Amino acid sequence: MLELCLLGTGGMMPLPKRWLTSLMLRCNGSSLLIDCGEGTQIAMREKGWSPYSIDTICFTHYHADHISGLPGMLLSMGNAERTKPVTMIGPKGLARVVNGLRSIAPELPFAIEYIEIQEEEQRFSCESFQVEAFKVQHSIPCFGYKITIPRSGKFSVERAREAGIPVSCWNRLQHGEAVEHEGSLFTPDMVMGEARRGISVVYCTDTRPIPRIAEKAKDVDLFICEGMYGEEDKLSNAKKHKHMTMEEAAILGREARPREMWLTHYSPSEVYPEQYKDKFSHIFPVKFARDAWSKDISFEEEE
Amino acid sequence: MLELCLLGTGGMMPLPKRWLTSLMLRCNGSSLLIDCGEGTQIAMREKGWSPYSIDTICFTHYHADHISGLPGMLLSMGNAERTKPVTMIGPKGLARVVNGLRSIAPELPFAIEYIEIQEEEQRFSCESFQVEAFKVQHSIPCFGYKITIPRSGKFSVERAREAGIPVSCWNRLQHGEAVEHEGSLFTPDMVMGEARRGISVVYCTDTRPIPRIAEKAKDVDLFICEGMYGEEDKLSNAKKHKHMTMEEAAILGREARPREMWLTHYSPSEVYPEQYKDKFSHIFPVKFARDAWSKDISFEEEE
Repeated sequence: MLELCLLGTGGMMPLPKRWLTSLMLRCNGSSLLIDCGEGTQIAMREKGWSPYSIDTICFTHYHADHISGLPGMLLSMGNAERTKPVTMIGPKGLARVVNGLRSIAPELPFAIEYIEIQEEEQRFSCESFQVEAFKVQHSIPCFGYKITIPRSGKFSVERAREAGIPVSCWNRLQHGEAVEHEGSLFTPDMVMGEARRGISVVYCTDTRPIPRIAEKAKDVDLFICEGMYGEEDKLSNAKKHKHMTMEEAAILGREARPREMWLTHYSPSEVYPEQYKDKFSHIFPVKFARDAWSKDISFEEEE
Repeated sequence: MLELCLLGTGGMMPLPKRWLTSLMLRCNGSSLLIDCGEGTQIAMREKGWSPYSIDTICFTHYHADHISGLPGMLLSMGNAERTKPVTMIGPKGLARVVNGLRSIAPELPFAIEYIEIQEEEQRFSCESFQVEAFKVQHSIPCFGYKITIPRSGKFSVERAREAGIPVSCWNRLQHGEAVEHEGSLFTPDMVMGEARRGISVVYCTDTRPIPRIAEKAKDVDLFICEGMYGEEDKLSNAKKHKHMTMEEAAILGREARPREMWLTHYSPSEVYPEQYKDKFSHIFPVKFARDAWSKDISFEEEE
């Protein structure tokens, strides 16, 4: 099962009662954080989740509202006595930016591994999470993320018996290993069905709407997308600063048809984002997320 | 009049409902901020005060809980369309640390002037505020601050008349200027009484109790002092990490006899600092400050 919490929904600056946009995901004891603005560690504490298990931190880009909370978060992870290394993933410049911020957090009890994204689309394996970074269109290099929990195919007892594979080999085959037994080689494809639908979430902020986003968010379980402005006259503003209006986000939703879609990264001027609900629901039934909205997503049940 | 607000009272890490310790002072349209941890800009907004008028930012030291909110604060000052330069005062290393943090806030519409403290005790004039930095005893170089709003002596109409000074010269003399008039030189000391008691506040966190602190806080209007731990068994912890217990703070208070004393910078483990009220009030009537405690201090009335 994947547990996730949208720790905040604010863009630009943290406000009383609105933390900056950040997403935390947990699966099999490992946590993954996307973006870490000022206050993210407090939002995480309000949710009741620990910084200890954050194995991976992904950054969309290095504007302050997406990374300014990092030094405090790292220190809190250290205070929680974490010693296991942490992997950070982000656009080029990651090590330089983080090292700058670490002028106030120079000593940590864990190592940091920096992975700077080299391609327009790139995949990484991070504990239980499959991470795909994909380039979007902002005023500086910026990436969206698709996080997937893959699910292997179904084990076929029938095919295993037909192939004469001893029961003692089944477990390893189910876990994707090839097994040699008394001179015979058994491989997972002999007994496993096609990979089944896993769990997938797309997180995308600080960008103009581009086709790649809808492509990545196609049929995902949850699509979390920037909806910076609701007012019509803000479109030129959105274009100028390379952001997205709620309407543009809804149109992406209509193309991608995710199972659920949340808006986030509201401009500080948007005090009641929900007021636009009726305005955009005919395009796609977007939900206007609020701080700490959470969701547990399980593999779908089968007949 | 001096207006001040203790924006937060937390030490080490920001907590839900407890911002990191930071003090904001306002006088004659200018604001001065001491320390700026993660979330200070939100605490300031909750108070309803603007970042626009912050002319001076003083840092006690560069542990993250005292400076991690700076990039966001600077960006918010920029968003508020500030263009007037900002003065920063702090221990050596100020420019290096701030430039590291500015890796995520590289473009600001105002200049920053860095003043690195060179002496163990050093004074600065910052708009309406007289600032005195004094070295304290922490694990890294750390300073306390005494902020004073000076008050000149009383103008004596009698003495001015006796000296034959024309009324047209009085105003400039009252403002401390010497005036030449028809060949005669008139100086303020001819008509002004001795400087009167001004307004003074001492702010002091992250230190062992040392005599200098009581000396600086002697008879001030408000003494804001670290009170990291209340439990008796935390004294060794306080000594080890160069912090101060509430009892040690109360003893400093007894020596300094300020008109009022607030504790702050509570350890995250101290959930209800007020529980120690009866324990230390016989030493000195310290008050257990909470976030956003505010005070307006005027020049004292005269007969």
